[in-house]
Amino acid sequence: MARHGSLLALVLMGVMLAVAGAEEHAAELPRPLVIQLPSSTTEKTAADEAEAEARCASWRVAVEANNVLPWSAVPAECAAHVRRYVTGPAYRSDLELVAREASAYARSLAASASDRAADAWVFDVDETLLSNLPYYADHGYGLELFDHREFDRWVEKGEAPAIPSSLKLYKEVRDLGFKTFLLTGRSEGHQGVTVDNLKKQGFHDWDRLILRAAADRTKTATAYKSEKRKEMEAEGYKILGNSGDQWSDLLGYSMSARSFKLPNPMYYIP
Amino acid sequence: MARHGSLLALVLMGVMLAVAGAEEHAAELPRPLVIQLPSSTTEKTAADEAEAEARCASWRVAVEANNVLPWSAVPAECAAHVRRYVTGPAYRSDLELVAREASAYARSLAASASDRAADAWVFDVDETLLSNLPYYADHGYGLELFDHREFDRWVEKGEAPAIPSSLKLYKEVRDLGFKTFLLTGRSEGHQGVTVDNLKKQGFHDWDRLILRAAADRTKTATAYKSEKRKEMEAEGYKILGNSGDQWSDLLGYSMSARSFKLPNPMYYIP
Repeated sequence: MARHGSLLALVLMGVMLAVAGAEEHAAELPRPLVIQLPSSTTEKTAADEAEAEARCASWRVAVEANNVLPWSAVPAECAAHVRRYVTGPAYRSDLELVAREASAYARSLAASASDRAADAWVFDVDETLLSNLPYYADHGYGLELFDHREFDRWVEKGEAPAIPSSLKLYKEVRDLGFKTFLLTGRSEGHQGVTVDNLKKQGFHDWDRLILRAAADRTKTATAYKSEKRKEMEAEGYKILGNSGDQWSDLLGYSMSARSFKLPNPMYYIP
Repeated sequence: MARHGSLLALVLMGVMLAVAGAEEHAAELPRPLVIQLPSSTTEKTAADEAEAEARCASWRVAVEANNVLPWSAVPAECAAHVRRYVTGPAYRSDLELVAREASAYARSLAASASDRAADAWVFDVDETLLSNLPYYADHGYGLELFDHREFDRWVEKGEAPAIPSSLKLYKEVRDLGFKTFLLTGRSEGHQGVTVDNLKKQGFHDWDRLILRAAADRTKTATAYKSEKRKEMEAEGYKILGNSGDQWSDLLGYSMSARSFKLPNPMYYIP
């Protein structure tokens, strides 16, 4: 009820501001009795808020459909929207739906072929298998520009939790007999802590964990990951599934037969 | 307030149903005094509704990110969600944001190059330039399976309205000097009515309108549209932008430098 009360207050304030605004264009009308609250010039009206919410919902969907690029930080007006999304049930629901679609696809492949020895599934790590939400909670959920040093310090703690729906998918894909290749933008310097973090969170028995070598540091993620996928193909593997939270995990060349884009409105990697 | 009243009724009914359900597993407990309303067995609880809403929102975003495929009709539980979306402000907001991103990209290209003679932008027609919402309003907004004959009768009326944000983008892209190629899955038999419909809605001066020939009828849209884009490239055109509501408008080969996926939760074309 408290929320409805403050909404009502916002609506009333909106009406007051609208009257005040209209007056600018109609000086002949008597000045209405408007109590000017201290913050009324910067206060947003309920209509403004609703419009911003619609724009931010549109922005988030457009990011997921790869319509917005490049972007360096969450738009300021969408900071609260993104925070609510990633800390609320919608993010979890979105992650779960993508995992279910990937699982159904993996099972359909397993049902139609007997020999899985060459079949591979690629998983990204950050925001795909492991979640860095605890880090982003301290950094505005993507509102702040990305700080490599700060993030590296977080990675070195090895405390990123598993994304539960991804852990379930990972285990299922392994149990179905797919080779599992973990392909991450993390640098080779983080190998030890990444292995420990993954194992502590229940990820085991991957076939390969590929980290970014010094020579790959200046490449875009799209180029680096495409090269690595091409190497897998050259070794005879068929990449049938690819799960990642960035389009740069999925696009480029040597693309997977099917790609699964996990939601991520907090950052963009080219 | 009436909505809050019925919400309260739904919550109360939910509690009653939960109690009734629990009783099945605990026969030793005394039967609670539950007034059985006539519709109580089919009535959904508020929690059920909220969960279905979350699932449908996730489904819609997953469709936009190309995570769900193929699908033949909107999931039954999402019929109301999709109807509300396409008839409400969110669909318009999503369309407008994608058009703004496309426009910014087109202007950035125009600013960085002087000769635009070979630069091309591809537009799909249905649910991209023209809207078939009046047709889908009569057919459950995608809940019904697609009926070719019915849809053809609608197309022959030539009354599909323009999508306003797409009309604005179309004009801007033309004004910036791009060649505009309209590439549609409509068959050549609909050429006359399609030209009339487009012109009546304000679309003029396209460089080419490509419809599906008899020989293309059995091809997927992805294959048909890729072939046509390849022909454009063979003629020397550089496809820099591509706007479509289906991933099959955008993926395949001879892909555009950038693609813009307009929202469409009503149908899927492979």
